[in-house]
Amino acid sequence: MGEAEQAEQPRRRARGGGGAARRASRSAVSFETARFIERNIPNLDILHDEALEIIETNVETVLEEIGVMFVENPAALERWRAAGADVKGERVHIPRGLARELVKTAPSKFTQIARNRARDVEIGGNSLVLAPVYGPPFVTDLKGGRRYATMADFEMFVKLGYMSKWLHHSGGTVCEPTDVPVNKRHLDMLYAHMTLSDKPYMGSVTDPSRAVDSVEMSKILFGADVVAENTVMTSLININSPLTFDSTMMGALEVYAEAGQASIISPFIVGGAMAPVSVAGTLTQCLAEGLAGVAYSQLVKAGSPAIMGAMVTSIDMNSGAPTFGTPETSQITYGMGQLTRRLGLPYRSSGSFTGAKIPDAQAGYETANSLNMGLLSGVNFMLHSCGWLEGGLASSPEKFVLDADQLGALHKIAEGVAVDENAQAMGALREVGPGGHFLGCEHTQDNYQSAFWRSGVLDYKPYETWAEDGSRSSFELAALKVDKMLSEYQQPALDPAINEALQAYIADKKAAMPDAFI
Amino acid sequence: MGEAEQAEQPRRRARGGGGAARRASRSAVSFETARFIERNIPNLDILHDEALEIIETNVETVLEEIGVMFVENPAALERWRAAGADVKGERVHIPRGLARELVKTAPSKFTQIARNRARDVEIGGNSLVLAPVYGPPFVTDLKGGRRYATMADFEMFVKLGYMSKWLHHSGGTVCEPTDVPVNKRHLDMLYAHMTLSDKPYMGSVTDPSRAVDSVEMSKILFGADVVAENTVMTSLININSPLTFDSTMMGALEVYAEAGQASIISPFIVGGAMAPVSVAGTLTQCLAEGLAGVAYSQLVKAGSPAIMGAMVTSIDMNSGAPTFGTPETSQITYGMGQLTRRLGLPYRSSGSFTGAKIPDAQAGYETANSLNMGLLSGVNFMLHSCGWLEGGLASSPEKFVLDADQLGALHKIAEGVAVDENAQAMGALREVGPGGHFLGCEHTQDNYQSAFWRSGVLDYKPYETWAEDGSRSSFELAALKVDKMLSEYQQPALDPAINEALQAYIADKKAAMPDAFI
Repeated sequence: MGEAEQAEQPRRRARGGGGAARRASRSAVSFETARFIERNIPNLDILHDEALEIIETNVETVLEEIGVMFVENPAALERWRAAGADVKGERVHIPRGLARELVKTAPSKFTQIARNRARDVEIGGNSLVLAPVYGPPFVTDLKGGRRYATMADFEMFVKLGYMSKWLHHSGGTVCEPTDVPVNKRHLDMLYAHMTLSDKPYMGSVTDPSRAVDSVEMSKILFGADVVAENTVMTSLININSPLTFDSTMMGALEVYAEAGQASIISPFIVGGAMAPVSVAGTLTQCLAEGLAGVAYSQLVKAGSPAIMGAMVTSIDMNSGAPTFGTPETSQITYGMGQLTRRLGLPYRSSGSFTGAKIPDAQAGYETANSLNMGLLSGVNFMLHSCGWLEGGLASSPEKFVLDADQLGALHKIAEGVAVDENAQAMGALREVGPGGHFLGCEHTQDNYQSAFWRSGVLDYKPYETWAEDGSRSSFELAALKVDKMLSEYQQPALDPAINEALQAYIADKKAAMPDAFI
Repeated sequence: MGEAEQAEQPRRRARGGGGAARRASRSAVSFETARFIERNIPNLDILHDEALEIIETNVETVLEEIGVMFVENPAALERWRAAGADVKGERVHIPRGLARELVKTAPSKFTQIARNRARDVEIGGNSLVLAPVYGPPFVTDLKGGRRYATMADFEMFVKLGYMSKWLHHSGGTVCEPTDVPVNKRHLDMLYAHMTLSDKPYMGSVTDPSRAVDSVEMSKILFGADVVAENTVMTSLININSPLTFDSTMMGALEVYAEAGQASIISPFIVGGAMAPVSVAGTLTQCLAEGLAGVAYSQLVKAGSPAIMGAMVTSIDMNSGAPTFGTPETSQITYGMGQLTRRLGLPYRSSGSFTGAKIPDAQAGYETANSLNMGLLSGVNFMLHSCGWLEGGLASSPEKFVLDADQLGALHKIAEGVAVDENAQAMGALREVGPGGHFLGCEHTQDNYQSAFWRSGVLDYKPYETWAEDGSRSSFELAALKVDKMLSEYQQPALDPAINEALQAYIADKKAAMPDAFI
């Protein structure tokens, strides 16, 4: 039972018991959130051992002979030099085996806590944590079409995420609120995650000072002692592929690692442009980058939580456009899962990826391809798991609810197959026998409510009923669902003193800086 | 190079060489068909050994204690009795281990030949053969909406299948041509497959006499000696779940087995209605039915090719509607793959399944879920791999080309990952180095044409271009693609004497029977 439902109960009781209470119970808003996925099924290992060893050997060659760049970051170069790397200018040549040795201090699994502790997530091992779309400057919806995203849109996505049962994490930049100054928007974004939801969230990475703000605001929300002893943020540190680590992202990483907060260290590779055009070549680069990045996080603070990331797409060689839900991306995602597990690190990849401009059939195919590969490649943290449209240029509320609904199917598949006596159903088979039917049998009556996952937004009606109801596409059905969800939204309770302290922190920070829009 | 292109060549040469020939070559219609898939990746085995053994033990209990019905078929009962079964009325109790022993004579892999022998398919082992939608009485398209299917629709689907690169098989009842008498339509349907395509096809199963017609027409097409020595048809024999084999379907099976032709022996189970509501219970029933059916095919003729089928959906317990692309279906499909491989039999399952009424996002999600599970569960023969809509009530030309396009992605994933020196791309990584880009490097130039699978129908344009072009959904883009394909269709060549003989056979048969519409 979710918070909203609990909050409703006294009112329902006041209205009287019996039939009225039962009707209220049936219509009560439930903001239930599922526990993060713990896979009870195997991963799909598409690379054989020899292929893994070839790639791992090549990775060491890349790190030693080609090296990686740490740009405008003398402290980073000093850390690498002290660790035994051969630093030439800003290029760091990492001796064979050093990065692999350094990442051993990173935890294979860690817990990110939420202010609603029932929503803590474990990241690593056989877990899968689902977080929403991150980064789009545009919003596309059925009513308004495509437009620049605003803070109102941002708040809407946080609300949808809070109400989505199968989404474990509130995420970070669910869209880029372009109506708020660049140097201040992170404050409003964090405040939205902290107050409109009670799920775990991500910190700002666009400047080291904004990472500091994220830590400070988290101390207000959780208490400084809690932040000192727990991971309360998992933030997205991007690598500039190929093989380059810039000072903005590394500055944010340093803040988070020193505060014991988690970072996803991840390239966003368009294969053929920012990495070789081959799967094995891209895997080599991707692993080299991830190893160098996670190793660096351990140089900053050994034991700080880090996630090996792989956000890889292919490219349409006709137009140069990035493409999504494609087979090469699946191969890379499966392969990086294997390589990351061999290192014992948590793995970030996959998402609700599509190049489609609207939530149409293309969006469905490409997204489902991506979500399935994410589940089966052993991803532990799936950013972009719902709401992604147009190659990440747009967030879509309709796609958000359609994707978030599909995430329910991942939970069910991951459960694996029960073979206890009830699941074996031999009694039902005997009772019904040849030519009978199972709808009325005792086993069906006992199990039907939990037997099958059911979509909360897709259409299961007969054709005639669907046509009478207006022949609505999924896009239209999802728009109705978005409206319904937002009309039922209720803010989770928060200590007013904490809320005021957050507001005061934000007001002080905003007053201290002139607005900047670049 | 496809037939159409070959046929064009003399004309192109006659028009003159040089530039004109090159232009003709670039614009020439190519009806290339990919070779059937040979998987170079592992299957996803979600059931552990203990679960498999529990289900297999329960299956033997079902076959022995509950038994299966062979209805209105005294010869079948006699065959079972002679094999050692305990026959009570029409119910056949199969002693533990007997069915498992009988299926050993069924080939683990067989070849179905096509009249264009370059399009022969191997069914079994690590192969995956893709065939189109089967059975819908309706057609839905963008222009005409939903209507009863006609013979003209049927011919259109055969043409689309012939022109679809990633589709290996012409299929059978691509839609149900309701404008032709029930007792004669199989003749027209077979004639369409035989003359409008040159891919392998399926025979009629709606009456044993129609199976005989299918064999006789195949003898005209291939020659009687070829049919005697080869599998030229793979036909769909449905089991009436639970545990019942009717005389129509068994009659057709008997005709095909005796002629050495292949049968898919398969239930179409709506879980919770025609099988227990649990995954393990449905797997038990499904395997019991398949084992009994394949065993019976071997009683008719030992060594005749048979495919173990599992066509399973879940049910929406709110409305009773069958649901598609759902997690329980995936679990059953993966599990049946494992159970079938343990028997060494070819496996039929999966398809482009959806409950959607139009090719929208729902269709995309559900279909991609189904296609991915089909690839990874080790399916050898995937009926319904394109064109399925509305729970199988409608065939859709737009969905046909969208799905058939996605089948290309399955081919690419199944290839596995190359790790040869070229694929390792170490030269490219050294050449480009940190901060560079790969688009212009030698390795990219050498490999870009084959590096990435590319959709032939989905939209990869930037938003602005897409909007200028009319903001078309995948449904609309697919409708344009259908029109283009049909306008470019060219019939494969066929010996006029064979064509006349087929027409004469059909005319004789039609003249010998009054029309029947039920």
